[in-house]
Amino acid sequence: MILDEYKDKVDEWLKQYFVGKGSYDKIVYEAMSYSLNAGGKRIRPALMFAAYSIYCDNYECIMEPACALEMIHTYSLIHDDLPCMDDDDLRRGKPTCHKKFSYPLAVLAGDGLLNEAMNVLFSYSLANGEKALKASQLIAKCSGADGMLGGQVVDIISEGKSIDYDQLRYMHSKKTGALIKAAVVCGGLLADASEEHINMLSEYADKLGLAFQIKDDILDEIGNAEELGKNVKKDAGKNKTTYVSMLSLEECQKLLEDLTKQCKDILTVLDGNTEFLMDLTDFLLYRKY
Amino acid sequence: MILDEYKDKVDEWLKQYFVGKGSYDKIVYEAMSYSLNAGGKRIRPALMFAAYSIYCDNYECIMEPACALEMIHTYSLIHDDLPCMDDDDLRRGKPTCHKKFSYPLAVLAGDGLLNEAMNVLFSYSLANGEKALKASQLIAKCSGADGMLGGQVVDIISEGKSIDYDQLRYMHSKKTGALIKAAVVCGGLLADASEEHINMLSEYADKLGLAFQIKDDILDEIGNAEELGKNVKKDAGKNKTTYVSMLSLEECQKLLEDLTKQCKDILTVLDGNTEFLMDLTDFLLYRKY
Repeated sequence: MILDEYKDKVDEWLKQYFVGKGSYDKIVYEAMSYSLNAGGKRIRPALMFAAYSIYCDNYECIMEPACALEMIHTYSLIHDDLPCMDDDDLRRGKPTCHKKFSYPLAVLAGDGLLNEAMNVLFSYSLANGEKALKASQLIAKCSGADGMLGGQVVDIISEGKSIDYDQLRYMHSKKTGALIKAAVVCGGLLADASEEHINMLSEYADKLGLAFQIKDDILDEIGNAEELGKNVKKDAGKNKTTYVSMLSLEECQKLLEDLTKQCKDILTVLDGNTEFLMDLTDFLLYRKY
Repeated sequence: MILDEYKDKVDEWLKQYFVGKGSYDKIVYEAMSYSLNAGGKRIRPALMFAAYSIYCDNYECIMEPACALEMIHTYSLIHDDLPCMDDDDLRRGKPTCHKKFSYPLAVLAGDGLLNEAMNVLFSYSLANGEKALKASQLIAKCSGADGMLGGQVVDIISEGKSIDYDQLRYMHSKKTGALIKAAVVCGGLLADASEEHINMLSEYADKLGLAFQIKDDILDEIGNAEELGKNVKKDAGKNKTTYVSMLSLEECQKLLEDLTKQCKDILTVLDGNTEFLMDLTDFLLYRKY
């Protein structure tokens, strides 16, 4: 399956990224590398590669922005896990960054990864011109207060409170949706897709992001801690509103199936090599972890 | 004095920056604005303006990168003040961000400001071409693990330990020196200064950064809490190695004077309108707060 190939390439690139760096501050490079190489599924880079591959063959040309996106995702996980946030001890079956290192180092490792992602994007933009710069700008916008971070804020301030469907939708469209959208749309942008195609990819990404979160909520409700590599029923334990708590498990399953179909319908209309993005859609929505 | 004009312009630009932004996540915009508008001296933007003004008149053209630098500086203060880091309640005479808002919101407000600085730099680069992109890249590099953040790491891990002069020098050249250098060098870069001048500005900034930190350490030892707007003798209370604890107050004063002279000697050799940077050098090194 192509996802394995994508994952191996990303793993390899990220593994060498910090090698030999640092002096008195070496420990923060170790903390950043630890979290970056803790076995993520590399879904966001894979989505960027698969969207790019609809139009072009050489997906390794966009390794830098794809890996920058993974750095941003990893920084957000490190900060989400902090004692003052979700206070999680386990992530992907391993101690979280602050458990393995320390609380202040986890704050700094998160900051450092966000910053490093931007360094990667600036270098990539300098080497590849305006198209690369526009894609980089989109990634930065989608990760900040107007994107992922805004969703994280809503998540934090609504803990223990009941929120309505609009707010839940807003939260997830930002918290998980924004980077998924950045991945898919940047894949198209970097492959010179037409404006019409970019719009369709954007619509696809919106639906995929929602479906992805519903799937996450279902897995948190019925999943297996060992397979997931993290504790389950965390959300219920914290009185968090989720799609499962707001709708029902059955309605969520139904919604997930509808969205999956809509995603695949959009891909069917796009001409080009949509095979990899089709496979990835299936994988993401039928996954067990 | 020109610093007041620079400060007013930066204050004005930053004050309007987040107006009207946010919805469910409005609180994080309030937290970012709170810290951003808490009355900083705006030294880094002022240095960028003053260096730029050696060669060009229209310093307001570089408002975006100058204010991005101030956002990065502010993010670093918010995270430095966190309970798991320096655990400070007061900053510039006001409650720190986590005291005013909450611990998780202060983490997110810091993350958000770093990210927003990058958004500003990407937009500025798109509008102003390669020179702007190179300056942006330098700012991002100087704020990350290879710059300011690396210094912060050394500061955190060496708390309560005695460190040697090399390590102290490394720490400060990164923690305070890196952004000062970014400010001065970007001012020159954006004004199309020659490579020879860039190198001299870089040397000036290294000396100024060191002098600035020595002055900070002296103020922490002998300054007045009210004038400083923060608690004094914090470093001694925490057993932190400083220039004052390593050398002596007299030696620090002497070193400060020597460095000030060296800074001004470099400026004297540069032809151009160095008046503002000269004034700023005096201000920074003779300040009482």
